[in-house]
Amino acid sequence: MTQTDPARLTADLIRCPSVTPEEGGALVLLETLLGAAGFDCTRVDRGGVANLFARWGKKGHARSFGFNGHTDVVPVGDEAAWSVPPFGAVERDGVLYGRGATDMKSGVAAFAAAAIDFVTATPPDGAVLLAITGDEEGDAVDGTVALLDYMTQTGETMSACLVGEPTCPETMGEMIKIGRRGSMTAWFTVVGKQGHSAYPHRARNPLPAMARLMDRLAGHELDRGTDHFDPSTLAVVTIDTGNPATNVIPAHCNGTVNIRFNDTHTGAGLTGWLRAEADQVAEEFGVTVEMKVKISGESFLTPPGALSDLVSAAVAAETSVTPELSTTGGTSDARFVKDHCPVVEFGLVGKTMHQVDECVPVEQIHQLKAIYTRILKDYFT
Amino acid sequence: MTQTDPARLTADLIRCPSVTPEEGGALVLLETLLGAAGFDCTRVDRGGVANLFARWGKKGHARSFGFNGHTDVVPVGDEAAWSVPPFGAVERDGVLYGRGATDMKSGVAAFAAAAIDFVTATPPDGAVLLAITGDEEGDAVDGTVALLDYMTQTGETMSACLVGEPTCPETMGEMIKIGRRGSMTAWFTVVGKQGHSAYPHRARNPLPAMARLMDRLAGHELDRGTDHFDPSTLAVVTIDTGNPATNVIPAHCNGTVNIRFNDTHTGAGLTGWLRAEADQVAEEFGVTVEMKVKISGESFLTPPGALSDLVSAAVAAETSVTPELSTTGGTSDARFVKDHCPVVEFGLVGKTMHQVDECVPVEQIHQLKAIYTRILKDYFT
Repeated sequence: MTQTDPARLTADLIRCPSVTPEEGGALVLLETLLGAAGFDCTRVDRGGVANLFARWGKKGHARSFGFNGHTDVVPVGDEAAWSVPPFGAVERDGVLYGRGATDMKSGVAAFAAAAIDFVTATPPDGAVLLAITGDEEGDAVDGTVALLDYMTQTGETMSACLVGEPTCPETMGEMIKIGRRGSMTAWFTVVGKQGHSAYPHRARNPLPAMARLMDRLAGHELDRGTDHFDPSTLAVVTIDTGNPATNVIPAHCNGTVNIRFNDTHTGAGLTGWLRAEADQVAEEFGVTVEMKVKISGESFLTPPGALSDLVSAAVAAETSVTPELSTTGGTSDARFVKDHCPVVEFGLVGKTMHQVDECVPVEQIHQLKAIYTRILKDYFT
Repeated sequence: MTQTDPARLTADLIRCPSVTPEEGGALVLLETLLGAAGFDCTRVDRGGVANLFARWGKKGHARSFGFNGHTDVVPVGDEAAWSVPPFGAVERDGVLYGRGATDMKSGVAAFAAAAIDFVTATPPDGAVLLAITGDEEGDAVDGTVALLDYMTQTGETMSACLVGEPTCPETMGEMIKIGRRGSMTAWFTVVGKQGHSAYPHRARNPLPAMARLMDRLAGHELDRGTDHFDPSTLAVVTIDTGNPATNVIPAHCNGTVNIRFNDTHTGAGLTGWLRAEADQVAEEFGVTVEMKVKISGESFLTPPGALSDLVSAAVAAETSVTPELSTTGGTSDARFVKDHCPVVEFGLVGKTMHQVDECVPVEQIHQLKAIYTRILKDYFT
C-alpha cells in the first residue's frame, strides 16, 4: 500500500500562500486528499475565514479521536532577509524551508498523513476527526471556535483531541503541553478634575489614584501556583498621562495591566476582582475609574491521565525521549477544545516559528507522523 | 517744588518696548531721572540683561530703605486682540492702557517718583536705594540676583526692602505679601529591564516601582501649615511610559512631581527627602531610579513686625483699607531679597497683568506713590 509522504505534503502546503486570513489553497488540497481517502469533508467557513472539518468513520461514535491544527501562517516579514523564497518550500541538506514549515503545516501534514494511512491500513472501530482552521494566527474568533460550534450543532463528537502545534523547545519529543495559562488585558482610565499644581485642593488629581491602584494590583499575590502551573502573574505594562506642564494637574491618566492566569482563576473572576479594586480606589480618592477588559483566552488543564499517558508512550517509543508534561507558553486553540473533550498538545521543535528562514528537518516530519500513527494505533487498540 | 508725576512716568515707561530681555529705553530713562535728582546710578548688566542700581545718601548707611522692581514685561501675545497699541500708553476715561501698566511699570514709576520727591523735599538721615531689573519675567538669573551680588561685592547695604509687584487681588490696599511659598519640580525615571508580559520574573518592571514611589510621595504629609502658610503641597503632574504593546514589560517609566512648600522646608531638604524615597523604592524593587530636580524658588517669610507694620499703616492711612498679610501666590524676586534684609511686597491690583488690554486706573498710580512716600517718611522719622 502506498504511504502518504508527510514531508512532500508539508512542501505542498508551504507553497500555498495562506497568510491569515487567506486560504491560499491549503485547505482545498487537504480536502482533496482526505476526501479521496474516504473522509467526510465539510468546509466550515465563517466571517471570511476558511475551515475544514473531516471525519472518517461514524458520526457521534463513542471512540472518536480528533486532531486540531491550522494552515494559516504569519506574514513573511522582511522578505529580503530570507535566504529562500518564503513560499518556495526549498529543501537544503535535509531541511525544508518556508513560512509555516514548523508552525504548523508540518504538523497538519503529519497528522493528515497519519490519519489517512492508519484508516486505510487498519480501519478502526471508531472515528478519526480532523478539525483544521485557517484562523489561528489572527483573531481566532472564526477558526477553531467555528469548527467546534459546527460540531456541536451537527452532533459531531470527539472523545479526545491532540493539537499539533510545535511544543518542543529544543529537542524532538521533550515536551507535551497538558495545559496553558489564560491571558487577559485590562485598560484603566482614572478621571479626575484638572487644576493648577499650586492649588491641588481645587483639583482632583487622577495620578495618585492610578499609582495606588497599580501598586495594589502589582503587589497582590494571585495564587502560589498549582501542581501543574506556575503562579499566575500580573504585569503593569504602561501608565500614561501626556501632561507636559509641571504647573498643571491633569484630568485623566491611563494604565494597563496584562494577566497570565492558571486554572485557579477564570477571566470573569479576575474581571470582578479588578473592578472591585478599581471601585475601592475610586472611593478612596473621589475619582472615577473606567475599565475595559479583553480576555484573550481562559486557562485550561487536562490533568495527567489516559490521554497524556497515551501520547507520552508514543513519543518515548519513537524518540527514546520521555516528554515533560508542561503548561508553559502562550495560548493555543486548545483553550477552545478543552470545553469539548480532554486535549493535549504535541508537535515539533518550535525554535524557528514566526522567524525569517523558518524551517524543519525533513526527518522530524517523518518522526512526527510516526508518533501520531502510533497514538492512533494505541488509542484504538 | 515740582512734583514728579508717577502716571506720566508710567506712560513714558510703557512706551519703552522692554519685553524681556530688551532694555527698551526704560532703564536709561530712569537712570536719567534719578541721576538728575542726586542718585548715584550704576548699570549692573549681566548675561545680556540690563539692571539699574541707584542710591541716594551714603553707601552702607545703617538706615537704608530699598525698593525692588522690574521694567521688563511679558510679550503682548495676540496684538490684534488689543483695543489699543500695547506700547502706546493710551489713556481712556482715567485708565492707562499698555503692556506693563500694572506689572509693573506703574509700581516702578510710583516708587521712583516717591523716592525722588522725598529725598528732594526732606533729605533723610539715611539712604534710599532702588534696585530695578530688566529680567524678572524671564529666567531671573541675571536680574535681581545680579543686583544683590553687585551690592554684596561693593559694600552696598539695605536695612529693609519693599518689592513693588501687584499684590492686591481686587481692591487697592487689601493685601501685603509677607512671604511666598517655594516651588520645585522633580523628574524621576525608573529604569528596569524589558521583557515579555507572560514571564515577568525574567524582566524587571519599572512600573510597580513608579506606582509605589508616586503613591508614597502623594500620600506623604509634608506639614500641616504654619501660622502664616497653608500646608505645603505635592502634586504628581504626570506619569508616562509610552508602551503600546500589552505583551511587553517596558524598561523605563517617567514621573514628575511639583512641590509648593512653605518655610518649614528648603529646596535642598526636600531634594534629600525625594532622593531617600527614590532610593528606598529602588532597593525594594531592584530597579534604578534617576532623579533631576529644579528649584524655581525657595520659600520666604518676613514675620509680621516693624516692616509689615510700617507698610500696613501707610496703606491704611492712604486707602482706609486694612491690608491682609498674606503668603499666597507664586514666586517673586522677594525670594532673592530675603537673604539680604527683611522684605515685604506691596503694589497695585494685579487683575489685568499678563493679559490683553493690561491697564491701571491713573488715580491708583497716584495713590501708590502716596503710600510709598508715606512709607519713606515714616521709616526715616
